[in-house]
Amino acid sequence: MIKTRAKAASGRRSRRAAPVPAYRQIYRRIRDAIEAGQLVPGARIPSARGMASEVGVARGTVEEAYQLLVAEGYLVRRGAAGSRVSPELATEGLRPDAGAGSDVRRSARLRKPPIARAQPDASPFLMGVPALDAFPRAQWTRIAARQARSLERSDLLYPDPLGLGRLRESIARYLALARGIACSAEQVLVTAGYKGALELAATVLLAPGDTVWMEDPGHAVAGRLLAAMGADIASIPVDAEGIRVAAGEAAAPDARLAVVTPSHQFPTCATMSLSRRLALLAWADRKGAWIIEDDYDGEFRYAGRPLPALKSIDRGDRVLYAGSFSKTLYPGLRLGYLVLPRNLLARFADALRLRNMGPATHLQGVVARFMDEGHFGRHLRRMRALYAARRSALIEGLQRTIGDGLELHIASGGLHLLAGVPHPRRDAILAERARSRGYALHALSDYCRKARGHNALLLPFTNIPETSALHICQDLKAAFDAQAC
Amino acid sequence: MIKTRAKAASGRRSRRAAPVPAYRQIYRRIRDAIEAGQLVPGARIPSARGMASEVGVARGTVEEAYQLLVAEGYLVRRGAAGSRVSPELATEGLRPDAGAGSDVRRSARLRKPPIARAQPDASPFLMGVPALDAFPRAQWTRIAARQARSLERSDLLYPDPLGLGRLRESIARYLALARGIACSAEQVLVTAGYKGALELAATVLLAPGDTVWMEDPGHAVAGRLLAAMGADIASIPVDAEGIRVAAGEAAAPDARLAVVTPSHQFPTCATMSLSRRLALLAWADRKGAWIIEDDYDGEFRYAGRPLPALKSIDRGDRVLYAGSFSKTLYPGLRLGYLVLPRNLLARFADALRLRNMGPATHLQGVVARFMDEGHFGRHLRRMRALYAARRSALIEGLQRTIGDGLELHIASGGLHLLAGVPHPRRDAILAERARSRGYALHALSDYCRKARGHNALLLPFTNIPETSALHICQDLKAAFDAQAC
Repeated sequence: MIKTRAKAASGRRSRRAAPVPAYRQIYRRIRDAIEAGQLVPGARIPSARGMASEVGVARGTVEEAYQLLVAEGYLVRRGAAGSRVSPELATEGLRPDAGAGSDVRRSARLRKPPIARAQPDASPFLMGVPALDAFPRAQWTRIAARQARSLERSDLLYPDPLGLGRLRESIARYLALARGIACSAEQVLVTAGYKGALELAATVLLAPGDTVWMEDPGHAVAGRLLAAMGADIASIPVDAEGIRVAAGEAAAPDARLAVVTPSHQFPTCATMSLSRRLALLAWADRKGAWIIEDDYDGEFRYAGRPLPALKSIDRGDRVLYAGSFSKTLYPGLRLGYLVLPRNLLARFADALRLRNMGPATHLQGVVARFMDEGHFGRHLRRMRALYAARRSALIEGLQRTIGDGLELHIASGGLHLLAGVPHPRRDAILAERARSRGYALHALSDYCRKARGHNALLLPFTNIPETSALHICQDLKAAFDAQAC
Repeated sequence: MIKTRAKAASGRRSRRAAPVPAYRQIYRRIRDAIEAGQLVPGARIPSARGMASEVGVARGTVEEAYQLLVAEGYLVRRGAAGSRVSPELATEGLRPDAGAGSDVRRSARLRKPPIARAQPDASPFLMGVPALDAFPRAQWTRIAARQARSLERSDLLYPDPLGLGRLRESIARYLALARGIACSAEQVLVTAGYKGALELAATVLLAPGDTVWMEDPGHAVAGRLLAAMGADIASIPVDAEGIRVAAGEAAAPDARLAVVTPSHQFPTCATMSLSRRLALLAWADRKGAWIIEDDYDGEFRYAGRPLPALKSIDRGDRVLYAGSFSKTLYPGLRLGYLVLPRNLLARFADALRLRNMGPATHLQGVVARFMDEGHFGRHLRRMRALYAARRSALIEGLQRTIGDGLELHIASGGLHLLAGVPHPRRDAILAERARSRGYALHALSDYCRKARGHNALLLPFTNIPETSALHICQDLKAAFDAQAC
C-alpha cells in the first residue's frame, strides 16, 4: 500500500515544472522526514497554524500539504489532538526494496528512534558512581524546584565563564573546613567535571611535546586525553606510598606536569605518604613544574583522621587542586572545580573567556544552595557511614564465599576494594568471567600502562546494599570457578 | 579589641609544644579562614557534630575549638540558629597594620565576598541576548520543576557524552521541519553552546597551522579561540551577499575549514546568496575542506520566506551545522548542538568519549520536554512577532530623533540593526559616547580584523520594549551630539 503511494508520489515529482510550489516543498520535507525515520509513527506534527508561522507561509499552504499527506496515509488527524504520523506505518514499514532504482530517499527503512536511552547500569559494581539509592532526592528536588521557580535575570544571561560567584564561595568555604585548603573564591573555577578541569589545565599549562607524569596503574582515560592533546606521557610506578617520585625524577626529571591522586591513589587506593608528598612538592618547586591533585574521592575515608589535601601544604603554590561533584553528589551533574595557584589566575581566566563553556548558571545555583543550607555536609556524613557499612558487608561476603581466593587490601578510604588475585589466576580472566554473569568488574591490569605484576580486581561497593552482598559474592564465586584456569 | 585578641592568640601560638592538639588545628583553620575573608561576617558554621564528622575528630574536640573562637569574638552562638562568624567583625575590620612583623596571616584584611555577582546587564542594548522579559518562565519553570521531581536513575549516572538521546531526537525533528535539514538523531551532538561546538570541531578537524577562513568583519572571539588553538586565520571579506568565496579561494585556496554565518552574517546581517552558497560548497567538495555553518539566529527572520540552512543543500556532506539555544531560549543554559556529516561521526564520538563533558543530563531533559510539548515552537513564533515589533519601534525612534545621522540597513532578519555612521563621524567614537551614558553599544569596526571602511553601529533591539524605544533614541542622540567630532 505504501509502495503504491510512494510510486504515485514519485510519478508526480518527475512531472513537476521548474519552480516547486510551497505546499509541495512542505509536503516533501515532512514525507522525507517520515521516510528517513526522523518523524516516527505516532509523532505529533505542529498545527497548520504553527507550521505556517514556522516556515513563513500562509496557513492555507500548509493545510494543502497536510491534506495531501493525510490522503496518502502518512498523517492522521485526531481532532483536538492534532495531526500525527500514522501509527500504521510502524507495522507496515517501508520496504527497502520498495522503489529501488527510482527514488533512493524513499527506500529508507522506517525504524525506531535510533538512539539507545541509557548506558548499561545494571551491574551493582558501578565504578566511580556513588550510591544511587541513597541520593537525597527529596532535599535536592525541593531545592531544584525552588531554584527553577526563582529563575533570575542573571540566570538567563551568559554565565561568568569562571563559574557562579556564589558557588565558588561555597566551594572555597567547604575546602577550607573539610580539606584544609586555604583559598579564596577567586582561586576556584567551576568546571565541567574533572575532565573539564584536566583539559583546561592542559590547554593552559602544556605545549605540544611537554612531558606529563601519570601514575601507573592510573586513570587510563585521563592519560589518553592528555596524549591526544599532544602531551608525552611518562608512566610513573606507584606503590603502597603512592607515586614513586624518585622513579619520576629518574625517568623524566623535566616534566612540566604531574597528575596525582594523593588521597586514595586510583585505582590502588594507596594514600600518598607525607615524605612522598614533600618530595613531589620539592621537585615541582625546583623545576617550576605543576602538579594536578585529583582529589576525586578524598571525602570518603573510613579509618583514621582524614589527611588534609596535598594542596594544603603547597607552600610554593605549584598545586592545582581538582575536585568533582561526581562522587559527592552524582556524575550526571557534570560539575567539578579547580583551585588555582594565584599566579595562574589570569591565564586560566583568559582561556575560559575565549571558551565561555561554564556549566548552566541555574544548575550551579542549585548546588550552591544545597551546600549553603547544610545538605551537602550532612549527605557526605551519611554516605561515609553508609559506605563503611557496605564495604564491611562486601568484605564479609567475600571472606565467607571466596575466602583465600582473593587477597583483600583494606585501604583507609576510597569507593572500591582492591582484591588481589592469587597466582596462577589472572585478574583479566576473572573479570571476563564475571562479565559473562552480568557483573561489570574491572581488572587492575587494565589500568596499567607499563607497570607489570599487578593482578587484582576492583570491587566498587557503593551500590551494593548490605543485604545483597552475600548473594552477589556467592554468584561471583560461581562465575570465577566456572572453568579451571 | 580584635587586635588584642589576635595578639593573645599569637602569643599562645608561639608557646605551643611540638604536636599541635586537634582542637587547636580546628581553631586555627577557622580563624585563618575568617581572617582571609573565606568565611565572611554572618556566615554560618557547621554544627560541632557536623564538623566533628567532617574532619574525623570527637565532637568534644570541636566544641573546645568553637568555645575558644566564641571567647575570642570570632564566632557567635545563636541557639537553634547555630554558630556564625561574628557580624561585628564586618564593621570593626582587622586592620592591616594590626600585627605587622608578628603574624603575616593575621594581617589579612577582612573583606566582602570577593566575587562580583553578575556581568553588567543594565544596558538595553544587550548583544546576542534574547528578550529576557518575554521568556516563558511559567511553562519553563513548570517543566523544570516536574523534571526535578522525576529525577531518574539515568539522570544520575555519567551522561552519554554525545548528548541525551531524547534531546538529540527532538533537535533532529525540529531541524527537519524548521531548517530543512535532513539528519538523523545520531548525527546530532549536544554541546556546551556554540563555543563548545566550535572547540570540539577544531579539535577533531584541524592540525596546528591549518588555515581557517573566518568572515571579516566577523565573530571576533571565535577567531581568537581558533587562533589560540593553533589555527592560521585567513580573514575573508564579506559583502551584501555574505562571505566573498572568490576572495577566499584567491587568498587561501587550501584552507581546511571555513566558518560562516549564512542566514544572517554576523555582524552585518547579510544573507548569503544562493550563488555564494553553491560556490562555497563547490570549493569544499573540490578541496575536501569542511564548513561550519554557525546558524546562531537563523530562526529570526521578519521578511520573506526563511531560507533553508546551507546544510540543507549540502550534497557532498561537507557542512557541520552548529545551532544554539542561547538565542532561542537563553544564554545561561549553555546548550548548543552540532549536526555532523555521517563520515565524521566516529571521530567526534571518540573525541567526546575522552572528554565526557556533555552538559548535565537533567537540563537536557528539560529542553527536550520543552520542545516535545510544543512550547519551543510557540515561543519562537511569539518571539518572531515581538522582535519584528521591537525592531520597527527602534527604527521609527531612530528616524524621528537621529534621522539622517544614521543610515539604517534593514536586513530581513537578525537580532540587531546595522546603522551606518555617515562621514566624518566614526562608529567607535559614537559607541564610546553612548557608553558614557550607560549604553553598551558596539561599533562594527571593532569586529573587523583586516577589513577597512566599515563604519556602523550595532543596535540590538531584543531587549528594548516598544514603549521605551523613542526615549532611548532621544538619549542616544544627546550622547552622540555631546561633543563635536
